[in-house]
Amino acid sequence: MNITLIGAGNLATNLGKALKAAQYHIGQVYSRTETSARQLGELLDCPWTTTLSGLADDADCFIISVKDNALEQVAEQVCRKFGNVTPQQAGGQPANDRKQGNNHLQDTAPIFLHTAGSMPIQLFEGRARRYGVLYPMQTFSKEREVDFSYIPCFVEASDEATMAQICQLARSISEEVHPMSSADRRYLHLAAVWACNFTNHCYDVASEILGRHDIPFSVMNALVDETAAKVHALPPRQAQTGPAVRFDENVLEAQMKLMEGELLQQELYRKLSESIHEYQKKVK
Amino acid sequence: MNITLIGAGNLATNLGKALKAAQYHIGQVYSRTETSARQLGELLDCPWTTTLSGLADDADCFIISVKDNALEQVAEQVCRKFGNVTPQQAGGQPANDRKQGNNHLQDTAPIFLHTAGSMPIQLFEGRARRYGVLYPMQTFSKEREVDFSYIPCFVEASDEATMAQICQLARSISEEVHPMSSADRRYLHLAAVWACNFTNHCYDVASEILGRHDIPFSVMNALVDETAAKVHALPPRQAQTGPAVRFDENVLEAQMKLMEGELLQQELYRKLSESIHEYQKKVK
Repeated sequence: MNITLIGAGNLATNLGKALKAAQYHIGQVYSRTETSARQLGELLDCPWTTTLSGLADDADCFIISVKDNALEQVAEQVCRKFGNVTPQQAGGQPANDRKQGNNHLQDTAPIFLHTAGSMPIQLFEGRARRYGVLYPMQTFSKEREVDFSYIPCFVEASDEATMAQICQLARSISEEVHPMSSADRRYLHLAAVWACNFTNHCYDVASEILGRHDIPFSVMNALVDETAAKVHALPPRQAQTGPAVRFDENVLEAQMKLMEGELLQQELYRKLSESIHEYQKKVK
Repeated sequence: MNITLIGAGNLATNLGKALKAAQYHIGQVYSRTETSARQLGELLDCPWTTTLSGLADDADCFIISVKDNALEQVAEQVCRKFGNVTPQQAGGQPANDRKQGNNHLQDTAPIFLHTAGSMPIQLFEGRARRYGVLYPMQTFSKEREVDFSYIPCFVEASDEATMAQICQLARSISEEVHPMSSADRRYLHLAAVWACNFTNHCYDVASEILGRHDIPFSVMNALVDETAAKVHALPPRQAQTGPAVRFDENVLEAQMKLMEGELLQQELYRKLSESIHEYQKKVK
């Protein structure tokens, strides 16, 4: 399978490395910015381009990993070029398709994938014959190597034959592959924002508080790890500890004072404490 | 060293087990409630009592691990009984002290410790001759075994000789022992609330969102672990990813809609996203 990667951000970089390690042929890489395109091209040892018109036409699979707010437009442009959709299928849109003669060979038409948790599969509808979603639920940074085999990948496809191929692709890089509808995946992505981005922000506030008193954030390592490990074994509600559980006004007020002048921190502190207390009341 | 544990909650239970494993003699356990007192007494194979008047007078060290809002009162009562403070030292308070004859033997007077992150050492002042703080910074639940040797313990003492003894005690159960003043420890505890309690609440909200769609929280395990592992290597600000970094209004509004009817969740979502965005602006 010859894969073209559209996008060269954190996710595309990590996914590209995993696919290459699984012996897939990465034929080409696209990024709007030359630095990113060249960087990923060199990393994966493949040609790169900064224009969608420069995309080669021999890919079996286009994986589009761009920012959510650019995804629909990029998908539309790439599909217009290679989507193999007849004007009829596209609902009257011109197909501009050099492979139109292949329409009867359903299984050899290229597959279009996006990797976004919160974007629906439907954005390919009418624009490509075969398409799907491969959402690897993880927090990716370019400077950090991740073991893809533990990353749960949530997949969805336009049809059964395409689903089989997407599953095969996903299973070659991850041991955890789950089919999931776009409707459910939105909630999964929302939950990931809470469990990852908001969690990391809590670390960040802790880091800022410690920094003001010249205490290194590394003292938190054991606590951060145990907090994470604990919810493998206990439901988070049962794992909860600390002053907000009992909503001890004395402690809460004393801690609010320690954040004097930091209005957003104080607001968040109060709301999070209230919310913890509300959740704990449900337990009783 | 003969240790009496005052309190039988999550922290006292875990600390007691660690001390016993380190070959300390736990002479007695106190808890206000009989179930907790008996449970910990049986676990540590030692006598237990539910009244402070039932405390034995032969302890070398009293470790007080009760709720923050009960700590001062319990400390006052225990110290009044065994604190070895003369009326003069206590500022005119009667000492009610059967060991008064030992006043010249400073180093054999019992040591009084509390284990609370946010409570100052000063609460022992004038109430005991030798005292200190041993704050093991971790989230403890009775049903979960923790390896105490990785838990950073923050210590403080009334005097040098007592500090040496508290450090020895702490080092026998943990490899990470740091002296820290009460003033700094307040901020440490506040940071721990963010990095642990608020983080765990973010997991809890994620769990609730998933639960509504019959998705098990365990799908989050890899994400939760990587989010925690990442901040060992990168500062949290640099580790941040997700839609709030760019404050993408379209994605944020779409996710707000998914929490319809959950007003506190929505408020937190918006404030946390704002705060992430503010922090990221500081990076640029």
